[in-house]
Amino acid sequence: MIVVLKQNFMQEQLDMLLHWLQEQGIAVHQSLGEHSTVLGLIGDTAGLDTDLIEAQDFVEKVQRVQEPFKKANRKFHPIDTVVGVGGVKIGAGNFAVMAGPCSVESPEQVSEIAAAVKASGAGILRGGAFKPRTSPYDFQGMGNDGIELLLQAKAQTGLPIVTEIMNVSHLPAFEHVDCIQVGARNMQNFELLKELGRCNKPILLKRGLANTIQEWLMSAEYIMAGGNQQVILCERGIRTFETATRNTLDLSAVCVIKEKSHLPIVVDPSHATGVSRYVKQLAVAAAAVGADGLMIEVHNNPAKALCDGPQSLTPAQFDDVMRAVNQVRAK
Amino acid sequence: MIVVLKQNFMQEQLDMLLHWLQEQGIAVHQSLGEHSTVLGLIGDTAGLDTDLIEAQDFVEKVQRVQEPFKKANRKFHPIDTVVGVGGVKIGAGNFAVMAGPCSVESPEQVSEIAAAVKASGAGILRGGAFKPRTSPYDFQGMGNDGIELLLQAKAQTGLPIVTEIMNVSHLPAFEHVDCIQVGARNMQNFELLKELGRCNKPILLKRGLANTIQEWLMSAEYIMAGGNQQVILCERGIRTFETATRNTLDLSAVCVIKEKSHLPIVVDPSHATGVSRYVKQLAVAAAAVGADGLMIEVHNNPAKALCDGPQSLTPAQFDDVMRAVNQVRAK
Amino acid sequence: MIVVLKQNFMQEQLDMLLHWLQEQGIAVHQSLGEHSTVLGLIGDTAGLDTDLIEAQDFVEKVQRVQEPFKKANRKFHPIDTVVGVGGVKIGAGNFAVMAGPCSVESPEQVSEIAAAVKASGAGILRGGAFKPRTSPYDFQGMGNDGIELLLQAKAQTGLPIVTEIMNVSHLPAFEHVDCIQVGARNMQNFELLKELGRCNKPILLKRGLANTIQEWLMSAEYIMAGGNQQVILCERGIRTFETATRNTLDLSAVCVIKEKSHLPIVVDPSHATGVSRYVKQLAVAAAAVGADGLMIEVHNNPAKALCDGPQSLTPAQFDDVMRAVNQVRAK
Amino acid sequence: MIVVLKQNFMQEQLDMLLHWLQEQGIAVHQSLGEHSTVLGLIGDTAGLDTDLIEAQDFVEKVQRVQEPFKKANRKFHPIDTVVGVGGVKIGAGNFAVMAGPCSVESPEQVSEIAAAVKASGAGILRGGAFKPRTSPYDFQGMGNDGIELLLQAKAQTGLPIVTEIMNVSHLPAFEHVDCIQVGARNMQNFELLKELGRCNKPILLKRGLANTIQEWLMSAEYIMAGGNQQVILCERGIRTFETATRNTLDLSAVCVIKEKSHLPIVVDPSHATGVSRYVKQLAVAAAAVGADGLMIEVHNNPAKALCDGPQSLTPAQFDDVMRAVNQVRAK
Repeated sequence: MIVVLKQNFMQEQLDMLLHWLQEQGIAVHQSLGEHSTVLGLIGDTAGLDTDLIEAQDFVEKVQRVQEPFKKANRKFHPIDTVVGVGGVKIGAGNFAVMAGPCSVESPEQVSEIAAAVKASGAGILRGGAFKPRTSPYDFQGMGNDGIELLLQAKAQTGLPIVTEIMNVSHLPAFEHVDCIQVGARNMQNFELLKELGRCNKPILLKRGLANTIQEWLMSAEYIMAGGNQQVILCERGIRTFETATRNTLDLSAVCVIKEKSHLPIVVDPSHATGVSRYVKQLAVAAAAVGADGLMIEVHNNPAKALCDGPQSLTPAQFDDVMRAVNQVRAK
Repeated sequence: MIVVLKQNFMQEQLDMLLHWLQEQGIAVHQSLGEHSTVLGLIGDTAGLDTDLIEAQDFVEKVQRVQEPFKKANRKFHPIDTVVGVGGVKIGAGNFAVMAGPCSVESPEQVSEIAAAVKASGAGILRGGAFKPRTSPYDFQGMGNDGIELLLQAKAQTGLPIVTEIMNVSHLPAFEHVDCIQVGARNMQNFELLKELGRCNKPILLKRGLANTIQEWLMSAEYIMAGGNQQVILCERGIRTFETATRNTLDLSAVCVIKEKSHLPIVVDPSHATGVSRYVKQLAVAAAAVGADGLMIEVHNNPAKALCDGPQSLTPAQFDDVMRAVNQVRAK
Repeated sequence: MIVVLKQNFMQEQLDMLLHWLQEQGIAVHQSLGEHSTVLGLIGDTAGLDTDLIEAQDFVEKVQRVQEPFKKANRKFHPIDTVVGVGGVKIGAGNFAVMAGPCSVESPEQVSEIAAAVKASGAGILRGGAFKPRTSPYDFQGMGNDGIELLLQAKAQTGLPIVTEIMNVSHLPAFEHVDCIQVGARNMQNFELLKELGRCNKPILLKRGLANTIQEWLMSAEYIMAGGNQQVILCERGIRTFETATRNTLDLSAVCVIKEKSHLPIVVDPSHATGVSRYVKQLAVAAAAVGADGLMIEVHNNPAKALCDGPQSLTPAQFDDVMRAVNQVRAK
Repeated sequence: MIVVLKQNFMQEQLDMLLHWLQEQGIAVHQSLGEHSTVLGLIGDTAGLDTDLIEAQDFVEKVQRVQEPFKKANRKFHPIDTVVGVGGVKIGAGNFAVMAGPCSVESPEQVSEIAAAVKASGAGILRGGAFKPRTSPYDFQGMGNDGIELLLQAKAQTGLPIVTEIMNVSHLPAFEHVDCIQVGARNMQNFELLKELGRCNKPILLKRGLANTIQEWLMSAEYIMAGGNQQVILCERGIRTFETATRNTLDLSAVCVIKEKSHLPIVVDPSHATGVSRYVKQLAVAAAAVGADGLMIEVHNNPAKALCDGPQSLTPAQFDDVMRAVNQVRAK
């Protein structure tokens, strides 16, 4: 960490800061220049509160050289993490596809889709039981009943399931769920993250609409700091000025995550674009860029989907996507 | 609401949609053109799920003419809402300033600041007990003890208090809090919003970092749909590409909110910029643009603030801000 | 185009507008509702100035149903356009790679790189002679001498060349250049676009940092409206809040462009990320998503590049990228 | 400037860099740590090409401590610059309002508006002769004839005039124009900026839609490095995800500019919002935040404006704005 001091500081101010840093076990190298003095902080600076240092009125700015995350950091864990969801592995060359309906609607719907996506090669069934909706007047999901339907489909097909949690108090209903999803809007719901850090279950952590990659890894760090190391990241598009797609899929985030972290990352082209016609091309691109898996919406009757219909594929379309993805992966 | 159909739809598809709309109590006017057919939907379209209509494969696009919010909508409630926090009114010409420390730290700190901001004319004491922090290694606030300290300061000064909630399960601790704040990161924590809709307390709803004004009003609608009409909006900056300030304060949002909604809106220049030197100018601008109040961070010793120090003012600086704001308001 | 009128308009205002539209050859279908009246405009609305209609004080809003571009529009030109640069075809399945140094520096540098990228399979040599630099104190390029060096390399290798223009007055120097590049910062330099519309040369039009896909196609339309139909689009990343990469590469833009336009589109992963380590993965992803080509920076000695060094590959690294891209394309 | 080296660099690499820096007159202080080595560069680093340093493969990152602009920098020019446009002063407490039509349309229109805005207290007449339009099919302005009409209005009213240039080749037509405007889309048209640096006329430099404050000051630096110190900055909104206003007016940019630069800054609320109903509130806020002036669109018949009509005020509305602004300024 680098601390740049203002031109006219008093020695006693600096001494106070140096003393405080020493107490934290941080070594300091000073670099005295004509127009500015620079402190180089050496040691475990991840735990330092930069705001506190920046608050000193003789400090011009504070810049981190090292990332503020540790457990999620590839520097300290160079080997790729493999997360197991049910028996399905994700990461370190293990590629997994999570597919299923946006919203769970009926036993028949879930059964049909689960059988179809399994036949096409999906390894995990996804489906929404608790749905975050912008409007209070829109369908909010089937809740616990939806989770029951997913578990029935799991029993029928053997596919492990992933579904979204919106509230810590719903946690008991997730007892038999294989992987708990944290949605984009809850990526910085720190209370939820802390609670999931105490779980012994894989967590699929979606990137927030307007969150940097570093903030995303810090949210993973919340879960990992609590003791749960089974985190799968999911890139699902960020909010930009462009309106031709619902969000802008940031595939370069896969490159950055692979470099900075050992955690697996999957890509959700369905939510990223909101347009089912673009899902195939972007799924193939995600596989090509090095993602560890995909999350794709599939509906047996997109025209009747209760939500997010425009981004869902039919089982036949999904089968076509899987063929294309497998081709690229086999390259 | 306007529905644009694709060029080659089948009459029976259209009939099915028209029938469904009729069941929802929606009247439809058709406009048949050479290249496209346009349906004008008349009636209470706020409850319609546009995604469902857009999911029909003969529909090209759906565009709302009317806003999807009702209770927060000025069209249906033309008169400005006044929200009372303790005895302090906000809205319809009632201007209130909420001031206090970012984080509650000690009895002395809160007491001193409360007395100081009251003397300068603040009407409400703000202070953070539960703190949302990007890093799990940063100070997370004093929690319930912090709320106790705020209540003591309230008893001493008579100032009503506002403080942030991060988890529904903490609600009992807010029993004597005068106004509950929903932070930017929780603006779309719909489970929390629903619960607050069942409260009988004013809610200060901060705008999310990357949320549109319409999404913000939809989150207010969540609270109001639950029965709680006491919502105060708070503009606190949005995330953009600019890095010279922590966020970009969107003062035009005050103009838009005043036009589209009857709810009061306050402005938080401290969090918006993250730079205490800019707070005075932006506080005055917020008063000039027509905001119903301000939320400002004040610290008796900014150099020692445990978080968000750079954006805090000293009591003397705050007093200077209040004079300038009052001058502009008296214009 | 749809025009929504305000609730209380006067019939004579509407008549005036209807008359004016009639004069423009536009047919109008009216849809009269309880709360709003909607006009559906049928005909060639691309030439209508929506601002003018929106300026009428009885109009609430104007929404385009049809895109405002015609010559670049796939609806009117369903077949993929193939642009020839020198003898190299781009579009409709013809995939071309443009590679070379960011800045032209010396005869040896250009020669070496040109020979190397040709050997690896690049079809076109790129190189900057006129360089847009944020700072007036940074190297601005070799100018006309740089173009001379590119032409020498063309003579040696047979590779056609593409290089950037920054000023209409430099056009004579581009006489023997095979393809003229318009940089991101000049995407809406309409005077330059008009002038290039009068050229008989392929134009590589880079997307502006903060420009929507529709604005980009409108800039292509400027060139095409002038008579020059040889436009190649180039996605090179957009500006977002994320700072881990220089820009955010928007690969979904390839999907959107392929749907809305018949023009070829290439992708520049070097400028998009600004990080040479990420170029290979993103080049492969761009090929997988369906781009018609790539633009990649290659330098014989990246450590000494005068500009944009961090994003340049060595010839050996470029060769590795080409192998990976060809594998994906052969899938 | 701070240079952070990678963990395993070779001494000879460092020596080469140190030697090169020495040749540039830069002193270096080294700070050797366990995990990273940090170089503090002291001297005139504004002229250093950071990309070149970053291109060295043993360098992890380069961070500027000092701003890369010099002539526009308040550190080196602590006193506010006053720019004179005709006889009207802007800056250092001199507040000026530029008002007039978006597009010049006819002698009567310009005359009427010029007389009206002068009567309300505007000091400078604005009007567009060359218009940057997104679509080639929209009205492009009257060109040289438009400038003639502005000069006639100047002769009639005595108001100095400001109008936009889009092309260096049009410069002769601007001979009698008092202030030349560079539009947002040309903020990084470096060729144009260089040419204007050779002019002896005030330049009104609008901020680009997606440009940071630092890039904006670097564009001012282009003009000033050429010898022309008469630069007026104009904040006119930036592009964000919000669509309720055309752009997001960034009033905190006024605070930042006032701190970092000595140049005057004016605010254009008309273009920033694109909504005439919001202009008054934001004009007052701009005056309150400390801007040195305003640029406001006024039209004698907004309903007939050929472009940008929705954002124009009538003369009566403008008069109302001026009263409100004067009240705030007199506070």
